[in-house]
Amino acid sequence: MTESELIRWIRNQKQDESPFVLKGVGDDCAVLDPTRQSRLVVSTDVLVEGVHFRRRWMHPYFLGRKALLVNLSDLAAMGAIPAACLLTLTLPPDLTGGFFRSFMDGFLEEVRRWKAPLVGGDLSGGSSVHVGVTIWGHLETGEPVYRSTAAEGDAVVLVGDVGLSAAGLNLLKREDPTEVAAIRTEKDLAAWAGDSFRWRCLKAHFLPTPQIQAGDWLRRNGFASAMIDVSDGLRIDLQRLSGDSRLRFEPGSRIRLDPGLAAHISEEAALTGGEDYALLATIPGDRLERLRTGYPAHLPEWRRIGSLRQPDADEVLRADQADGFDHFGRRR
Amino acid sequence: MTESELIRWIRNQKQDESPFVLKGVGDDCAVLDPTRQSRLVVSTDVLVEGVHFRRRWMHPYFLGRKALLVNLSDLAAMGAIPAACLLTLTLPPDLTGGFFRSFMDGFLEEVRRWKAPLVGGDLSGGSSVHVGVTIWGHLETGEPVYRSTAAEGDAVVLVGDVGLSAAGLNLLKREDPTEVAAIRTEKDLAAWAGDSFRWRCLKAHFLPTPQIQAGDWLRRNGFASAMIDVSDGLRIDLQRLSGDSRLRFEPGSRIRLDPGLAAHISEEAALTGGEDYALLATIPGDRLERLRTGYPAHLPEWRRIGSLRQPDADEVLRADQADGFDHFGRRR
Repeated sequence: MTESELIRWIRNQKQDESPFVLKGVGDDCAVLDPTRQSRLVVSTDVLVEGVHFRRRWMHPYFLGRKALLVNLSDLAAMGAIPAACLLTLTLPPDLTGGFFRSFMDGFLEEVRRWKAPLVGGDLSGGSSVHVGVTIWGHLETGEPVYRSTAAEGDAVVLVGDVGLSAAGLNLLKREDPTEVAAIRTEKDLAAWAGDSFRWRCLKAHFLPTPQIQAGDWLRRNGFASAMIDVSDGLRIDLQRLSGDSRLRFEPGSRIRLDPGLAAHISEEAALTGGEDYALLATIPGDRLERLRTGYPAHLPEWRRIGSLRQPDADEVLRADQADGFDHFGRRR
Repeated sequence: MTESELIRWIRNQKQDESPFVLKGVGDDCAVLDPTRQSRLVVSTDVLVEGVHFRRRWMHPYFLGRKALLVNLSDLAAMGAIPAACLLTLTLPPDLTGGFFRSFMDGFLEEVRRWKAPLVGGDLSGGSSVHVGVTIWGHLETGEPVYRSTAAEGDAVVLVGDVGLSAAGLNLLKREDPTEVAAIRTEKDLAAWAGDSFRWRCLKAHFLPTPQIQAGDWLRRNGFASAMIDVSDGLRIDLQRLSGDSRLRFEPGSRIRLDPGLAAHISEEAALTGGEDYALLATIPGDRLERLRTGYPAHLPEWRRIGSLRQPDADEVLRADQADGFDHFGRRR
């Protein structure tokens, strides 16, 4: 398809109406109505072929879904609700047919699920696939939760799983299962995976769950003093959260990983692999008991993993000293 | 530099304060205050190495400047004023030193000039350079100018030059002057170009002028019934403007191109080359005289190039039937 045919195809896809979006795809700019929002938050992430994903291990339908999901996780970390998104897609010319259609099917499926209408973007040719998503979240009232506002003594709680995504990636690297690239339903992927733990790992890698509801609930009910999402590995993101608040993380006990992980990856790899899209929140001590009794049963479980303490006098707090994924390939 | 060093470098660059930006780079999301805006408009564009630019002909400082400038042009077409931007930058690991610094110097220079603070982004490794910019504009009062709202009889006016950028690109293609990639000041580039027309062409290609002030003035004073920026070539963008308003463009006279262009490119290439970032506006006939007398002398000249008419009964109005740049490489 030509660029204008691709754009027309996108314009013809059904999308929900949103009071935030006055004009979506089809003009020089999208037009948004900011007047009913207390705050807008915005984030952008790219998925680069060969760096963030390989086409040989992933159907474009799952890539499209993942592209939106990983961006939603940043909204969760502010306690915001999805409002709208933009998509830039760079494709080799031979991928403007089936690959494009499957990618967009997956992307728009998540757009509808999360009520984040696609309001614009840019399509371009290029030598490899490059996906860029910009996403807005809104808050109807109040302020977002920053990552730098935790206080001494706050408990650190984790919502969601850590290490499963890294185990899923490891599985792909180890087995190099090129047949997976042709599988485009969750059911068939689960069948391919065989046992249920392998499927959980693959699913965590392909279709991470952004903790939008938990983030929103923790913010609206005044529990979270600070939040961050775990995208580059639990260890580095814990250090960012505590470092930005000028505090030190003190583990409550050994961080309990899913016991199934041991058969797949080391504890070290689980803590540094990244792409978990779990949520880390800090909870002031006097609210912890209320959180225990008041946290809704339908939200993913939280667990306390430690607390924040004053650093020792000679401690240098730099978030980037921990191990985690660095896109320019050096680890310390 | 590592990814976190690059981010720290960006955070340490001086940027102007803006009441719109409550939190810029450094958290999971940027936080914006939408409450003083009537409307927000937003646009995104990518610059892909080998497609939109070649490193062998362009210093990264100019690439950084151009990356912001081309996005501003979309705001101009809505009659909006720059508010903030996001940047995604994908770089091969060997370009995280001087290339990165020069690119950012250029980008941030335009950010300051146009008061569009950089509030967030994403850095990634990759096999080639890929730049993505998302830009917001705001309107303090009123509505933006769409491209589909022109009426029969409206005059079509052009603000800015057409064809110079294509001539500049043609010059680079013809001469393959790899020494240009090492030139990082306008003065040295002008000296390299030799005659002043060659410099105008190169400048139009490297540093297009977004028509923000003209677009804002035309909107605020109620002159423009519709607007679009000329990014893919005058011919196709004229057809988009008229087609989206279900009308037909009727040239007033032969479109007068800069006479200097004839020595560089054909008229056809000037009308279809694209990257002009001029502004096309439609003006209702009864406001044309007032525009003639009231248009401020400090704004770039406008000229009437034709008007909009009802299409003939058997005419199919499809914006994408005109020639222009298509990223997937087919022309009709």
